[in-house]
Amino acid sequence: MKAFDLHAQTLLQTILSARRDVRGNRFQGTPIEDEVLRKILEAAISAPSVGFSQPWKFVIVKDTSKREAIYEEFVRENAKAAKLFSEDSLYSTLKLEGIKESALNIAVLYQKPTKTVLGQTTQKKMGEYSVVCAIQNLWLMARAYNIGVGWVSILRPKRVKKILEISDDYKLIGYLTLGYVDKFLDEPELLKLGWENKKTIDEVVEWV
Amino acid sequence: MKAFDLHAQTLLQTILSARRDVRGNRFQGTPIEDEVLRKILEAAISAPSVGFSQPWKFVIVKDTSKREAIYEEFVRENAKAAKLFSEDSLYSTLKLEGIKESALNIAVLYQKPTKTVLGQTTQKKMGEYSVVCAIQNLWLMARAYNIGVGWVSILRPKRVKKILEISDDYKLIGYLTLGYVDKFLDEPELLKLGWENKKTIDEVVEWV
Repeated sequence: MKAFDLHAQTLLQTILSARRDVRGNRFQGTPIEDEVLRKILEAAISAPSVGFSQPWKFVIVKDTSKREAIYEEFVRENAKAAKLFSEDSLYSTLKLEGIKESALNIAVLYQKPTKTVLGQTTQKKMGEYSVVCAIQNLWLMARAYNIGVGWVSILRPKRVKKILEISDDYKLIGYLTLGYVDKFLDEPELLKLGWENKKTIDEVVEWV
Repeated sequence: MKAFDLHAQTLLQTILSARRDVRGNRFQGTPIEDEVLRKILEAAISAPSVGFSQPWKFVIVKDTSKREAIYEEFVRENAKAAKLFSEDSLYSTLKLEGIKESALNIAVLYQKPTKTVLGQTTQKKMGEYSVVCAIQNLWLMARAYNIGVGWVSILRPKRVKKILEISDDYKLIGYLTLGYVDKFLDEPELLKLGWENKKTIDEVVEWV
């Protein structure tokens, strides 16, 4: 049994704290080495999954025309989103994706179950949540390799699936952009810009 | 800008690989020190969140009678679940929770938004997914402190919320049990028992 010490705890927190949500204004476009991508994917599939179902699929998107089509979807959806923030002049100045500037994109999918999954009988969302755990593992290992990840959420999953010709056996959970960066910000950009404040432990913890 | 090296990459993968989903047959009941719990919660709130909304809440449950009531809910739900696996004699032998044996439980909640959240306008689930990222961070830091975590999913969220008197402003995402353990298994228990095989990278990755 592996016992970890203060060094491991401190290094893990350093990685967790140094992870950023990276956008196109930071990506440099340098290719990600295949062996590095593999290490990042190994981290992803080390995630927990309900009933050890491992319901994840990772579609690596390098193709330029597919990325262009997904970018156009983003532009369409973001035009709608921007109207909801029309009273906030900051919104329109934000770079909210890096689909084309990144080295590659990854569509992370949930494979719908074909049999009863242990632990997923009461809470049907557990399978999707397993895929999110894999995304967080991927994100952390990418950061350990000094690679930035951005999660692009202003996209309609059905449109992305159509562009990538993904069957109805799968649900899109996250659309990620990965690449080397000029720098990682020392704090989340939305915190720096004053969009939201950082919540403290005491604000988010209750005792029963 | 913090640049990580092979040492950090290797140590991170060691932690990811050593993390287990821990059940009541492993927990020892030893209390978790307050300062350690705080470090684990700090890791949780270092997670990414859509629009930096940080929509998480952590309810620490130590109270014995509340835990007893939640355990009874588990027993009721698991009796239903077991019927779905009646052809598999292994199911009934599995210990699937550690609600009472653990040092403490944490109900991890999603706080429903009261205003429009940046990045959550197209995909409404992004807020819940942020909370799952926090759970995964928590799970990893707990492991770095040699503390086991079990995610108990055979519980009806509404019943748990009622027992814990949680308002409708919140949705239960995960019910976790934490504690020191006699040992961490070297592989997931369901893999060891032959319930599922481990999927390889090549089985879960496609290239476009």
